[in-house]
Amino acid sequence: MPHIALEEGIPGIVSAFAFRPETARPMRELAEVLLRGPSSLSSAEREMIAAYVSSRNECRFCQLSHSAAAAEHLGGGEADYALLEAVKADPAAADVSPKLKALLGIAGKVQQGGKAVAAPDIAAARAQGATDVEIHDTVLIAAAFCMYNRYVDGLATWQPEDPASYRSMGKRMAHEGYVRAPEPAAAR
Amino acid sequence: MPHIALEEGIPGIVSAFAFRPETARPMRELAEVLLRGPSSLSSAEREMIAAYVSSRNECRFCQLSHSAAAAEHLGGGEADYALLEAVKADPAAADVSPKLKALLGIAGKVQQGGKAVAAPDIAAARAQGATDVEIHDTVLIAAAFCMYNRYVDGLATWQPEDPASYRSMGKRMAHEGYVRAPEPAAAR
Repeated sequence: MPHIALEEGIPGIVSAFAFRPETARPMRELAEVLLRGPSSLSSAEREMIAAYVSSRNECRFCQLSHSAAAAEHLGGGEADYALLEAVKADPAAADVSPKLKALLGIAGKVQQGGKAVAAPDIAAARAQGATDVEIHDTVLIAAAFCMYNRYVDGLATWQPEDPASYRSMGKRMAHEGYVRAPEPAAAR
Repeated sequence: MPHIALEEGIPGIVSAFAFRPETARPMRELAEVLLRGPSSLSSAEREMIAAYVSSRNECRFCQLSHSAAAAEHLGGGEADYALLEAVKADPAAADVSPKLKALLGIAGKVQQGGKAVAAPDIAAARAQGATDVEIHDTVLIAAAFCMYNRYVDGLATWQPEDPASYRSMGKRMAHEGYVRAPEPAAAR
């Protein structure tokens, strides 16, 4: 049961957004810019970073919904969903580019704490061609999910058990984005 | 030295905001709503929560600037600055209201992780009269500073040594807010 009176049947962060629209607006806008705005990183890559950090923070809601969003950006096939599981289990062993592996390494450090990011982590990403903006966005995606994850679990929001709900959410997140309030159709 | 090419002489998060205005806008707006928007918690109380979480995350830049902002909201005297040091050292022993002590307890749990917040933490805050919105905002302020702190230190932003710089920043943050880009006068 949620720690505060959130509307029943609305899943995860969407229930917290509905409770406090004033803070929801910039939080949705930040997700939109970071995950779907113009970038030399694909939305699939950025959603993978979000899913990986959420997995490290053990936030089931964010981890499953952003894994689904990443998989949908890749085409939405079973192999795409399987790739996301591999990335979360061990980014270094997953079938992603060397550059994304290095960026996931930085994201994992940010999840531990800002000071954990060290010069060799940055050098490894640069050696694979990562730009300053890509490094910046990786640090901020990872930092932002340390916020979203704590928000979702710190309020003990209601979360669907059914994996299919997360696939529907991921589809909407990938194709409609974060700024227009997504209808939590799966839960209603 | 910062991990990426941030403009020299601009302190902490302001240099990261200048590097990427697209993400700065929602991040500034979120801080404004959370710390200075309409609320039954005073801005001093909300800045204390921000300073406390930043201290737990060992983010010197955010910890000193938000301590100064809180002290400025209280009047800006030496006793106000001393109160902030006491809050960060041990909220339970500091001279603040029982309700704020309970909310700082929740914030400390969020800093560890969303799942660390337990029903007795919430019950303790309710017993001191905390409302659902106050509990919500405490969780989100704490979560948001887990983002801001990681952003500041994950990019290794340049940070002034001089304590007086943080007092000037805190004054501007308290009196001018977060949405209009504050001139980093102390550093220029």
